[in-house]
Amino acid sequence: MKALGRLYGVGVGPGDPELLTVRATKVIAASPVVAFFAKAGRRGNARSIVGCWLKPSHVELPLYYPMTDESHFDDPPYREALARFYKESTIAIASHLEAGCDVALLSEGDPLLYGSFMHLFVRLRDHFDVSIVPGVSSICGAWGAAGAPMTWGDDSLVVLPATLPLDELTRRLALADAAVIMKIGRNFARAKAALVATSMAERAIYVERATMAGEVIKPLCEKEDDSAPYFSLILAPGRGRRP
Amino acid sequence: MKALGRLYGVGVGPGDPELLTVRATKVIAASPVVAFFAKAGRRGNARSIVGCWLKPSHVELPLYYPMTDESHFDDPPYREALARFYKESTIAIASHLEAGCDVALLSEGDPLLYGSFMHLFVRLRDHFDVSIVPGVSSICGAWGAAGAPMTWGDDSLVVLPATLPLDELTRRLALADAAVIMKIGRNFARAKAALVATSMAERAIYVERATMAGEVIKPLCEKEDDSAPYFSLILAPGRGRRP
Repeated sequence: MKALGRLYGVGVGPGDPELLTVRATKVIAASPVVAFFAKAGRRGNARSIVGCWLKPSHVELPLYYPMTDESHFDDPPYREALARFYKESTIAIASHLEAGCDVALLSEGDPLLYGSFMHLFVRLRDHFDVSIVPGVSSICGAWGAAGAPMTWGDDSLVVLPATLPLDELTRRLALADAAVIMKIGRNFARAKAALVATSMAERAIYVERATMAGEVIKPLCEKEDDSAPYFSLILAPGRGRRP
Repeated sequence: MKALGRLYGVGVGPGDPELLTVRATKVIAASPVVAFFAKAGRRGNARSIVGCWLKPSHVELPLYYPMTDESHFDDPPYREALARFYKESTIAIASHLEAGCDVALLSEGDPLLYGSFMHLFVRLRDHFDVSIVPGVSSICGAWGAAGAPMTWGDDSLVVLPATLPLDELTRRLALADAAVIMKIGRNFARAKAALVATSMAERAIYVERATMAGEVIKPLCEKEDDSAPYFSLILAPGRGRRP
């Protein structure tokens, strides 16, 4: 009986192809199948990031989201479409693993921090061997690109999705020394209001497409409109003790 | 006049040498001087991690901490010793940069997340060119080694140093969906008490030396004593929405 393939959850970092780990490049090189999430009709960020690390012999397995805007999560038809999508993606990957082929499933940033990978991981891990290859998270990529030291001494750090209600954002920011607000997109005005309410807006930095072409980094107070892509984020660095 | 050297703040990841980024290996290879923090008489974790990436031609610049236990930070003589140490380290690095040599200053994990690098960065950045090479943070390394998906959907994540008082830890954990408590060391019992008080202890995972030799990963409830090294941490994964 042929041995089953192994699934690798591969973090590909924030965008710059050189921010893949050495392990990630080796795992991709050795895996006959490379799977990745993408919007229908798009190549997907993760696949774009690893372009220079792929060989013509790689079998590519794109997994196309039914929709990519999470704002309709409470809508039952969307939830059902998403559940069906994860189930079908699981089956597609399992068929390669059952044939004895290792599969590298790509994740932007780190695979276990808000990664779609996690939805397939929990469906596959009881049936196949799975290895996680941690990556440079998008948040580390962002504060690195901004040159912003985030946490000093006893600073606490909070990472919040901007999809939370304003009062939830504000309550959590009020207890934090340093903060990252992710998934900005159409939630920009709410995220900014929460930072203003907690006196963090003045030191906040808006970051879009960190480490990639089209990178935008500016003080939040210099951003003049409220439009932002889904994958932008806002940093509020800590100010803890330093000798 | 000779051009000044460039300082690189290089994240070397959580411990496994293959978790350096491709960029980090290139920057180290191209920098004549490699600087790193260490306890006196020790090699230091960051230096140990990059051993296989160094060449005999590298000039090594160890920066020896006056002490490494932060628990005495409020003690004026310790603060003064630390301030003097950062000043002397700054001068040592500046002398290489002034001679036109690039310097790669290593950081375990990511350089801007609780990294000693930050103290030299803020002292040098107005005088020299500095580039940040983000790394796989120790927290991503830990949850990757534990196979623990951390944040789902709208989960918020809080990162807390265990050096905070119990009531501060508890207040912040109470508002978080997922949590990482760092700098455990002698603060283990307090960190555990805060997790018990917020009903997070049952799902918490204790992690020591993630991705390195001697790695220890176990449910917090199975850890029988209160002793832990300074660089251990505890994860409490989120349980947010998933279709």
